[in-house]
Amino acid sequence: MGENIGAAARAMKNFSLSDLRIVNPRDGWPNAQAENMSVGARDVIDGAKLYKTLDEAIADMNYVYAATAQLRDMNKEYIYSHELADNLSELGTVGVLFGRESSGLSNQEIARANKIVTIETNDNFSSLNIAQAICVICYEVFRTDQNITAKLDNIQELATKEELGYFYEHMISELDERNFFKADGKREVMTVKLRNIFERIDRLSASELNALRGVISCLAKEKR
Amino acid sequence: MGENIGAAARAMKNFSLSDLRIVNPRDGWPNAQAENMSVGARDVIDGAKLYKTLDEAIADMNYVYAATAQLRDMNKEYIYSHELADNLSELGTVGVLFGRESSGLSNQEIARANKIVTIETNDNFSSLNIAQAICVICYEVFRTDQNITAKLDNIQELATKEELGYFYEHMISELDERNFFKADGKREVMTVKLRNIFERIDRLSASELNALRGVISCLAKEKR
Repeated sequence: MGENIGAAARAMKNFSLSDLRIVNPRDGWPNAQAENMSVGARDVIDGAKLYKTLDEAIADMNYVYAATAQLRDMNKEYIYSHELADNLSELGTVGVLFGRESSGLSNQEIARANKIVTIETNDNFSSLNIAQAICVICYEVFRTDQNITAKLDNIQELATKEELGYFYEHMISELDERNFFKADGKREVMTVKLRNIFERIDRLSASELNALRGVISCLAKEKR
Repeated sequence: MGENIGAAARAMKNFSLSDLRIVNPRDGWPNAQAENMSVGARDVIDGAKLYKTLDEAIADMNYVYAATAQLRDMNKEYIYSHELADNLSELGTVGVLFGRESSGLSNQEIARANKIVTIETNDNFSSLNIAQAICVICYEVFRTDQNITAKLDNIQELATKEELGYFYEHMISELDERNFFKADGKREVMTVKLRNIFERIDRLSASELNALRGVISCLAKEKR
């Protein structure tokens, strides 16, 4: 909803964030409701980047949190919003994914995240308005950022989500050539599971990703 | 504005608060916009108490915070929202005052509070939407109220280091059969690097390790 995008933009600016990325907005873009609700944060709305797919939106990021209300049956670490790392900026370019107002994020989408962040709420009424949820997360990100006095230098260049995506697709296509996903339905579960494993490696460097790519290519070759 | 009252009611319920008190609402009461925006928190709207004056509204409270965006020239202690006391409930019946969307609280109103609570924001864009500000405060009140001891946990059985070691040796032996580590000296560096990647996957489950093992076995097979 445009109103929620506008309210989210305002909250972002309140907490000194500006890189708003929107995947496939339901009501098209630009959106008059979003502009109206953003009030003094029109610059965030005007600077928003539009993407057709989630993968494009996170391609240049090094670390991604998925914001979810309910716990999912997925083996991925959960943190509460107030536990967001004080060293957030050491993780490189960090993004937080929010899903649709109605249905949130899918498992396929969550699998792309390094960790899940959840806002602790009333068990009997846990569904936050999405702009409110974004406001709370922006508030916490801003707070953690204030604590940073010294930033550690990254010695290693970190892998981007796009590079990791290419690796993953390469692996899946090699597996497909060998009929790895036989049973119907198993493919969906297994691809989410595999994606989830690799996305969870913290601070994976570009050089390490290269090594993983080498492993897949090597194994996929015929033996001599 | 009714919309803000409704959004505030929803945020209150999200964080297990219900005692909404409204002083002299601009657009009268009941208010259809407030009802619409409250979504599943209609009970909070219906239970809201109306007052003609602030003094009546806070009469039975033991402790009052005034929420302000800017610091005022008033000799009153202020705290940041994330510093709200963990022992809030020991203070008795506690209220938080919020002012008008446009002009906030007057000095006269703030004077009635024990302390000021302020949300730290971008210095150049500090004006939060009032429902967003209420959401952040409710979020913090809820957090202080929780005795968070139990970490969210997964039911999944975790892989042991021993099992991970077997997986790793399996992978290395398949790589050796294909001459992956050609140059002298490179083997040492590369095996450490690969081990490091897989050991860093947090909370790898036994079932996930199985999937990884399957990937290596599958890739190592000749193509059909």
